[in-house]
Amino acid sequence: MTQRGRFLSIEGGEGVGKSTQIAALAEAIRTAGHDVIVTREPGGTQGAEAIRQMLLGGTAERWLPRAEALLFAAARSDHVERLIEPALESGKWVISDRFIDSSRAYQGGGSGLSDADILTLHEIGSRGLMPDRTLILRIDPDEATRRASVRDHGKPDRIQAREADFHKGVDVAFVSYAEREPRVRLVNADGPPATVTSRLLAEISDLLVPE
Amino acid sequence: MTQRGRFLSIEGGEGVGKSTQIAALAEAIRTAGHDVIVTREPGGTQGAEAIRQMLLGGTAERWLPRAEALLFAAARSDHVERLIEPALESGKWVISDRFIDSSRAYQGGGSGLSDADILTLHEIGSRGLMPDRTLILRIDPDEATRRASVRDHGKPDRIQAREADFHKGVDVAFVSYAEREPRVRLVNADGPPATVTSRLLAEISDLLVPE
Repeated sequence: MTQRGRFLSIEGGEGVGKSTQIAALAEAIRTAGHDVIVTREPGGTQGAEAIRQMLLGGTAERWLPRAEALLFAAARSDHVERLIEPALESGKWVISDRFIDSSRAYQGGGSGLSDADILTLHEIGSRGLMPDRTLILRIDPDEATRRASVRDHGKPDRIQAREADFHKGVDVAFVSYAEREPRVRLVNADGPPATVTSRLLAEISDLLVPE
Repeated sequence: MTQRGRFLSIEGGEGVGKSTQIAALAEAIRTAGHDVIVTREPGGTQGAEAIRQMLLGGTAERWLPRAEALLFAAARSDHVERLIEPALESGKWVISDRFIDSSRAYQGGGSGLSDADILTLHEIGSRGLMPDRTLILRIDPDEATRRASVRDHGKPDRIQAREADFHKGVDVAFVSYAEREPRVRLVNADGPPATVTSRLLAEISDLLVPE
């Protein structure tokens, strides 16, 4: 019987170097002998990418918080049922750029929806699938804003535009998950990329050891 | 203070004459002195209509049941928060061609989601708003299929294509709501349109009386 693959999610605000670190992490896991699929949210499948276009397009007012949370949950459901679960079942590792904790931190904070609501939507949409490990990349919030602004030439998308205001609340939420849930780890994203990659690998070393 | 308007939903399979009856019902309620907004699901607002396009387009396999239920709930959330609730609060009556009971009958039956799941999504997305009265138009299932086929020139959309199989299960679900929930009324849709309209009006006569 094929051993089930491992599921990692990488979280963190804009400009913390997620893409670079995900590529390095995937390479290291492949070197350790595993097949790895890298994906992202919202998106990752044809249906979820279509929902992503609806979510990220338009003005900040296009979706109210409740509809937005349901759309994220719908995209995640398609992503989980069509890509993540089948990959894990076939023994592949999956790394997702954002997952449920982004919905909890962005949609579940102070917009009329509770963390319990977001987790209920996840239970109904995706049978509550949780990552085996969640790595949250963190740098100083002001530095993150500067980096994101440089990268995007000052043209943030709908979610990014809101991020400056939300950033500190989102960070507080991430820290609280790490305090309460053993799967969630905070990783310092300051410093040379190779140093950050080493820190990430240290947080998943127990998963890489053959069982 | 403006008296809150009444919210009616009209349900029933394809080919039972919903559109004709909704127009007649709206006219009768206007004649009784109320402002009336006629709308439909999925849809009714810009955001919900965009979701409608995603739901009705493509093949029957485009969305799995869980994602589909979340998309319907997202469309309904936008519809309720942006159109139905503001209209009711301003004293207008609202008639919706389909509402939550369609989701319960179509998405909540035998596709891995329970009626409780569908109602939970409605609670989170639309604060559980229920119609003041739900009128379910019913004719003989074989006759309904024939009427729908003639009207659509044999080109059913994604949901309609599935309807032939689902029809009997959907009807059983509607009957069970009527048995348990006083707001839900079964109305015989066989006979001349004016006769059917009279039956509908009889089921809302208590609401039309000024309080």
